[in-house]
Amino acid sequence: MKAFCFDVFGTVVDWRTGVAREASEFFSRHQLAGIDPYDFADAWRNLYQPAMEACRSGKRPFTRLDILHRENLEIVLRKYDVNPDKLDDDALAQLNSAWHRLDPWPDVVTGLTQLKRNHIIAPASNGNIALMVNMAKRAGIPWDAILGAEVTQAYKPSPPAYTRMVEILGFEPQEVCMVAAHNNDLHAARQCGLATAFVARKSEHGVHQTTDLEPSEDWDFVVRDFNELADRVLSSN
Amino acid sequence: MKAFCFDVFGTVVDWRTGVAREASEFFSRHQLAGIDPYDFADAWRNLYQPAMEACRSGKRPFTRLDILHRENLEIVLRKYDVNPDKLDDDALAQLNSAWHRLDPWPDVVTGLTQLKRNHIIAPASNGNIALMVNMAKRAGIPWDAILGAEVTQAYKPSPPAYTRMVEILGFEPQEVCMVAAHNNDLHAARQCGLATAFVARKSEHGVHQTTDLEPSEDWDFVVRDFNELADRVLSSN
Repeated sequence: MKAFCFDVFGTVVDWRTGVAREASEFFSRHQLAGIDPYDFADAWRNLYQPAMEACRSGKRPFTRLDILHRENLEIVLRKYDVNPDKLDDDALAQLNSAWHRLDPWPDVVTGLTQLKRNHIIAPASNGNIALMVNMAKRAGIPWDAILGAEVTQAYKPSPPAYTRMVEILGFEPQEVCMVAAHNNDLHAARQCGLATAFVARKSEHGVHQTTDLEPSEDWDFVVRDFNELADRVLSSN
Repeated sequence: MKAFCFDVFGTVVDWRTGVAREASEFFSRHQLAGIDPYDFADAWRNLYQPAMEACRSGKRPFTRLDILHRENLEIVLRKYDVNPDKLDDDALAQLNSAWHRLDPWPDVVTGLTQLKRNHIIAPASNGNIALMVNMAKRAGIPWDAILGAEVTQAYKPSPPAYTRMVEILGFEPQEVCMVAAHNNDLHAARQCGLATAFVARKSEHGVHQTTDLEPSEDWDFVVRDFNELADRVLSSN
């Protein structure tokens, strides 16, 4: 194995808690009462796949995630009877960049630091480059490179999101391991010949999560967290 | 200033010494006598601008530097009366990847480590992503992201090589500083609104170097090395 490439939202960082925290501050500042910030985070996230699907299907050209997030933010605000046109544009931009300020799960930085000694580590996220760089700077995530949708110009789980990444790295598919908390991401990566590692993140969607609690296939690695992944990789060398 | 983006060949690494070292080993291994490895490095490098110019002018689509380097390697070998078709393909690939194994100038890692504390640091090189990642892993160069030609799909000094990079980072042009040992690179960056920093590398082309010994314009920073750049940036904050 030469490189480990990581899904980020859910796998590396806890998007729900981070978005809810910033949404809550935003609601206080703008005296918007009665919106549950976790419900708001979920509602915003629910618009994520349909927005990318428009790009995947060719209905619109590839558009970076910061822009899709901003469009979705305005939609979700309206669902909560908040008119975004009456809010300050800088305040909306600040809330939109909440996705740049998500906290990693507690095992991430130590596990990645250990993996990085002998392997290339990079995000293979649908998030754009600026989002990933700002997140990594704030949280101390030691990526070797920022890969992902903006580099491949393709959103996962489209095959080019994986195949172009492997080609850019100059490796064979089986030399690159996709790491994700989502079985569908690993399924798509495996279809493209990549190795796969599943790490369950059982509270990504909160305590009542029902999806991705277990591996759905015999992935190459099934681990509790990134520290176990690093230990397993080290001992298999 | 939010980000510092660096030219790499010449500015960050000593390409001539590194390429000559690997060429010399290659010549020994293949019993090719009488080729001066420094002349060979210069001859290989001399084909660099014309190859990129074919992409810049639209004569051919954007093609990553590893491929241009390989084409140029075969041309330069023929100039020295060596037929590349009679050499092992793996050995040629290994020599071609000499560009992935160049050593940084002695001030680079300490200077970048200091700059990285408060700023995003990234290569803005014509080198491709794999080349930059492999170089950084080997040399311990602590980039926050790998930017450059393969990300912008444009070779410097074409304006999109600078403007797309700024846009990808999500900053204003004046918030991004281009750092280079080459006045023409800084001239092009300044035309796009970026800040500029000149660091003289007076032996990039060997001891008889005649170009880029001095700044040709009043760049925002003119420094001896990356440590001085980091000190100047820190004290101007």
